[in-house]
Amino acid sequence: MAELFDEINPPPRLMMGPGPINADPRVLRAMSAQLLGQFDPAFTGYMNETMALYRQVFQTDNRWTFLIDGTARAGIEAVMVSLIEPGDTVLVPIFGRFGHLKAEIAGRCGAKVETVEAEWGTVFTPDRIEDAVKRVRPRIVALCQGDTSTTMAQPLAEIGAICRRYDALLYVDATASIVGMDLPVDAWGIDACTAGLQKCLGGPSGIAPITVNARVERAVLRRKHTERGIRPAGDVPGEGPRIASNYFDLAMLMDYWSDKRLNHHTEATTMLYGARECARIVLKEGLPAVVARHALASAALVAGLQAMGLRPFGDLAHKMPNVTGIHIPAEVDGEAIRTDMLNDYGIEIGTSFGPLAGRIWRIGTMGYNCRKQNVLITLNALEATLRAHGATVTCGEGVDAALAVYRTAEPAPARAAAE
Amino acid sequence: MAELFDEINPPPRLMMGPGPINADPRVLRAMSAQLLGQFDPAFTGYMNETMALYRQVFQTDNRWTFLIDGTARAGIEAVMVSLIEPGDTVLVPIFGRFGHLKAEIAGRCGAKVETVEAEWGTVFTPDRIEDAVKRVRPRIVALCQGDTSTTMAQPLAEIGAICRRYDALLYVDATASIVGMDLPVDAWGIDACTAGLQKCLGGPSGIAPITVNARVERAVLRRKHTERGIRPAGDVPGEGPRIASNYFDLAMLMDYWSDKRLNHHTEATTMLYGARECARIVLKEGLPAVVARHALASAALVAGLQAMGLRPFGDLAHKMPNVTGIHIPAEVDGEAIRTDMLNDYGIEIGTSFGPLAGRIWRIGTMGYNCRKQNVLITLNALEATLRAHGATVTCGEGVDAALAVYRTAEPAPARAAAE
Repeated sequence: MAELFDEINPPPRLMMGPGPINADPRVLRAMSAQLLGQFDPAFTGYMNETMALYRQVFQTDNRWTFLIDGTARAGIEAVMVSLIEPGDTVLVPIFGRFGHLKAEIAGRCGAKVETVEAEWGTVFTPDRIEDAVKRVRPRIVALCQGDTSTTMAQPLAEIGAICRRYDALLYVDATASIVGMDLPVDAWGIDACTAGLQKCLGGPSGIAPITVNARVERAVLRRKHTERGIRPAGDVPGEGPRIASNYFDLAMLMDYWSDKRLNHHTEATTMLYGARECARIVLKEGLPAVVARHALASAALVAGLQAMGLRPFGDLAHKMPNVTGIHIPAEVDGEAIRTDMLNDYGIEIGTSFGPLAGRIWRIGTMGYNCRKQNVLITLNALEATLRAHGATVTCGEGVDAALAVYRTAEPAPARAAAE
Repeated sequence: MAELFDEINPPPRLMMGPGPINADPRVLRAMSAQLLGQFDPAFTGYMNETMALYRQVFQTDNRWTFLIDGTARAGIEAVMVSLIEPGDTVLVPIFGRFGHLKAEIAGRCGAKVETVEAEWGTVFTPDRIEDAVKRVRPRIVALCQGDTSTTMAQPLAEIGAICRRYDALLYVDATASIVGMDLPVDAWGIDACTAGLQKCLGGPSGIAPITVNARVERAVLRRKHTERGIRPAGDVPGEGPRIASNYFDLAMLMDYWSDKRLNHHTEATTMLYGARECARIVLKEGLPAVVARHALASAALVAGLQAMGLRPFGDLAHKMPNVTGIHIPAEVDGEAIRTDMLNDYGIEIGTSFGPLAGRIWRIGTMGYNCRKQNVLITLNALEATLRAHGATVTCGEGVDAALAVYRTAEPAPARAAAE
């Protein structure tokens, strides 16, 4: 007898962890639309519009700005496996778990992997990265903009120029930071950049926006080996080694996303609808406004936590605006607090990985959830839960401090209208 | 100034091609639910239920029955890259384009690829496959159950036993056939099987159900190299070569889908909701009823096409029930007919690839679209469009013949009630 279980009916949650977060309802509505055939002109039109929208999100003119059908990690692997030829030297500056991930993927691609590590909770100075580039002379430098595991954000404005100076390609993983921070891909000389929907873009995990420039295009096309059975007459294989993955082969994906529409996978229609809507929502608000909204929530949250008597983690000058680490007070069990927050308030906050597991909580203020009410609700719930567990916290001062930050930032007329 | 485009609003289409097809509205509704954190007990509960549901869909007791976050092709690559060690001999019996795809992926995994080919429009006898296995002694045999490019379905009941006899692992790609045909994974001795939602399961492309048995588990675990940064204390790397992909590493994915919940990607929440609902809908109707519904639609469609004066493609004794090839009459332009069908009736039918491009159309009767009304509507529209293009077709005989097939199959009381 078939066991069918009940229909999908998730308990209401306020997801204030390091992502995923609650999807913007407009994204879910867009995703409820009926499907289209992958070569239907209406659908290829949506594909082209999605490319145009993400060019604006990435602040780039790159022709090759499209989606990888998988989670953010799929976008990372697509760029790395298409770019890295076995034996290439790849430099990975590591300042958290997602640096290790890129070193790991580079290793699986057959790279000679070189790493430099910053203590968790800190980032690199441009000089330290330049020294490493000068020393190991990598073909590719791969790093995160923001590594949620430590909540740190690496300043990138100077890294592109350093890489050009030593003729290295720069790949930036912006999964956790995209639209939560400024990231002008072209202005900063970033050659390849990948993202995900489930953080500040306010959508579900499952499709990865990427952009690559002409330097990457050249490197990839020399490895192009179109699969037999769909190879057009006159398609000459590249002289470079075949890319080890078919699914993540950017050369073939370019033919799928161009007017050639050479069949590859079947585009994930519903996820594309979602990705397109995420970008529309962000661009409608305006990139600078979205970035400012995240910065303001960060300031308010940090002020609130400090006023409550808690200690934020790491170098606050380089904290990601959309996620904040907090030292777990010694007198409480961090996991018990997280469980009570979820069960009593429906609020999810995160823990961390590796050396920080059980040592810090992580509170996200991202995308659709990055709003005053959620900062205040979360501070109140955390304070009450800590008190219930016997921790020493101030009473009410957390929300007051957070609210004060918001009041300062709000234009007086808007405040008057709202009151 | 940001160019935002309009909201998603796809033109209404009846998708009667080789997939994707229209999603069941219940699937889209399930996918419109709000997200959950990936380690929220409510979400891990949905993950476990999804595993249980797909065990029933695949007719297997395999513990490792879960989802790969990508399109059907991602499921194929995950099994192949996790299983194939460089230098392994992989036998791919090819009877269409998707056989070439598996040979291609095996090659990228570093396999010594051996192929046997059946003429497009035919399949293999078990003897021919046994002869090839005996000759090349592969470690792995990889083939399609149904190859939509030719509309042919390979009988598989005896292939598992052949592979066991020569100690080869059998991998079956059931993307295009799952629940459109019977596929008892355990009873037929299939070691690994992968699928997609966008054909007979009635969902969107973007997530791939897979199942692997204990033989595959052993082969994969000997290659397990958990990534640094999340590697638990005491995790001993396997003695086999590291899997070339991180994203498709089944050994790490098993830790994510087990009670260990070791972080890997962020599960594609919305696509999981969809996959879960697809399985519930199929199991509620009942697998045998779903398979019978596809067989009936196939019989009706073929009868209708023949009565109209058209010639079905290939060996009809081995045609997939959910997709039917038709020789394009010499006097018409196949693409012009497809365009008119789409623009005048909103009906999509397919063409094919490689040697069959422009020679056949393909009409799908799959999943949610596999219903009497769609068979009849499509036959009517095709007849009228062919007539408009000057082709010689009978008038009205196509739908009459299709309807007669349905009338014979419908129980008399139901017929009376409906009339």
